[in-house]
Amino acid sequence: MADLAGWRERADAALQRALPDPSSPPQRLHAAMRHAVLLGGKRMRPMLVYAAGALFDVRADVLDAPAVAVELIHAYSLVHDDLPAMDDDALRRGQPTVHVAFDEATAILAGDALQSLAFEVLANTGASDSIRVELLRTLAIASGAAGMCGGQALDLAATGNGTSLSVSQLETLHSLKTGALIRASVRMGALCGGASPDDLARLDRYADALGLAFQVRDDLLDIEGDSATLGKTAGKDVAQDKATFPALIGRDASRARLDELRAAMADALAPFGARADGLAELGRMAIERDR
Amino acid sequence: MADLAGWRERADAALQRALPDPSSPPQRLHAAMRHAVLLGGKRMRPMLVYAAGALFDVRADVLDAPAVAVELIHAYSLVHDDLPAMDDDALRRGQPTVHVAFDEATAILAGDALQSLAFEVLANTGASDSIRVELLRTLAIASGAAGMCGGQALDLAATGNGTSLSVSQLETLHSLKTGALIRASVRMGALCGGASPDDLARLDRYADALGLAFQVRDDLLDIEGDSATLGKTAGKDVAQDKATFPALIGRDASRARLDELRAAMADALAPFGARADGLAELGRMAIERDR
Repeated sequence: MADLAGWRERADAALQRALPDPSSPPQRLHAAMRHAVLLGGKRMRPMLVYAAGALFDVRADVLDAPAVAVELIHAYSLVHDDLPAMDDDALRRGQPTVHVAFDEATAILAGDALQSLAFEVLANTGASDSIRVELLRTLAIASGAAGMCGGQALDLAATGNGTSLSVSQLETLHSLKTGALIRASVRMGALCGGASPDDLARLDRYADALGLAFQVRDDLLDIEGDSATLGKTAGKDVAQDKATFPALIGRDASRARLDELRAAMADALAPFGARADGLAELGRMAIERDR
Repeated sequence: MADLAGWRERADAALQRALPDPSSPPQRLHAAMRHAVLLGGKRMRPMLVYAAGALFDVRADVLDAPAVAVELIHAYSLVHDDLPAMDDDALRRGQPTVHVAFDEATAILAGDALQSLAFEVLANTGASDSIRVELLRTLAIASGAAGMCGGQALDLAATGNGTSLSVSQLETLHSLKTGALIRASVRMGALCGGASPDDLARLDRYADALGLAFQVRDDLLDIEGDSATLGKTAGKDVAQDKATFPALIGRDASRARLDELRAAMADALAPFGARADGLAELGRMAIERDR
């Protein structure tokens, strides 16, 4: 049995240790960084790192650094996405967003410093130098213009005229905006275990299906969920005329797509047997979650 | 004779190669990243990388990656510093700033993607894996909350009540805000050449003096220079009641401080002899520049 709750607690503890001391200067910046990371979050990406490492019996303490690093990148991206010039969101995980709790300038800087910290943490991974370089390259590419930032740029361009995107354009958008970091999470865990190119290709297929499923579910929750359970403002996508799967293909087809993605994940993980229990469970969570 | 102009051209060419293609999507993000980096800039930090590498006869092609990486970090920090929520500057190097030429959301994202790109480039340095990890760690620490971002946070806190800072607080602010990246530039060049801890300590002394001299000169130029030569708005520090050396200790004492810093640089570089010509020349430039 995969110990998802144990991995989540492990990630939380490692994040606590990695973040700067709120009592040392500059206190306000440190406090904003901690606010961004420590006030909740599903820790899905760290759990993916641990679960992918478990395929190859990697020791959890080697996986702490990539688990922390990917969550720091994710957290910084949320801080910047929530800014008034971007999605202009006041609520995140049921808490005021960083620019609301602090101020815009501090939110920009806290995001910037969280990104730097991700790479600093990764440089200190307890893996060999050659694996560390590979982890750093993997995370940097996934975070940048060819990954997460590029996806966010496509999302900005699509917002306001959302229904003019094709389904394949929407899938490209998400494969960058959220998919790149999810793929990097799985890859980093596997790289720590010396995964073969074949293993990595198979795990990419799993991660791509998971990332897409996560997003389809997100889109469904935006129209079906309520703000209190979600911890963020429901109905926002429709209000902003964002491209979403339900808007483009309807709710029923979106749910059917989730079933296909569930099957694709199972297929990709089959050869790994019971060692893939953690990844399989995380796939189920992505599809069945209600927040 | 150190070939500073040659190093600058080399850095410009390497930056051109490292930046994403403006004709491939997302075009607007790529164009904003290129605008931020390619429309001018003294390239002081890349030249410091090459000059420090020259102390140890490091091949220039090994130094290209750290030279590019540090300039990408510097460029991203300017994009974010110029944002309305930060310094709110419309002009930089005589050109419209990124949020003016594009928009705020694109400027935030372009800065974020430039930071990621810096670490990606560094992961591809043609040095050994152990040196690469050391370079990555050095740049990440210098960029984050204990370095550049931390200094910017202190600067934000001081703006508007600038003259309430002590000189030593102002020096701490600058040793983080600009000093950390200058120190990292020199260190990265030296690390590529296998510098000893003694060499590194000596070069830190040079870099700290250079960074402070650069800032003192910057403060003097803000009150003595004109916007056309500077390529940015003169008189801004006074208008924003920023902490500056002339405001705290006066112009004459600021000029005397420059002389002390010039002597400190010469002292730190003396044991390296003629190989340090490049670093010495860069020190002179920082003190004597008129923009």
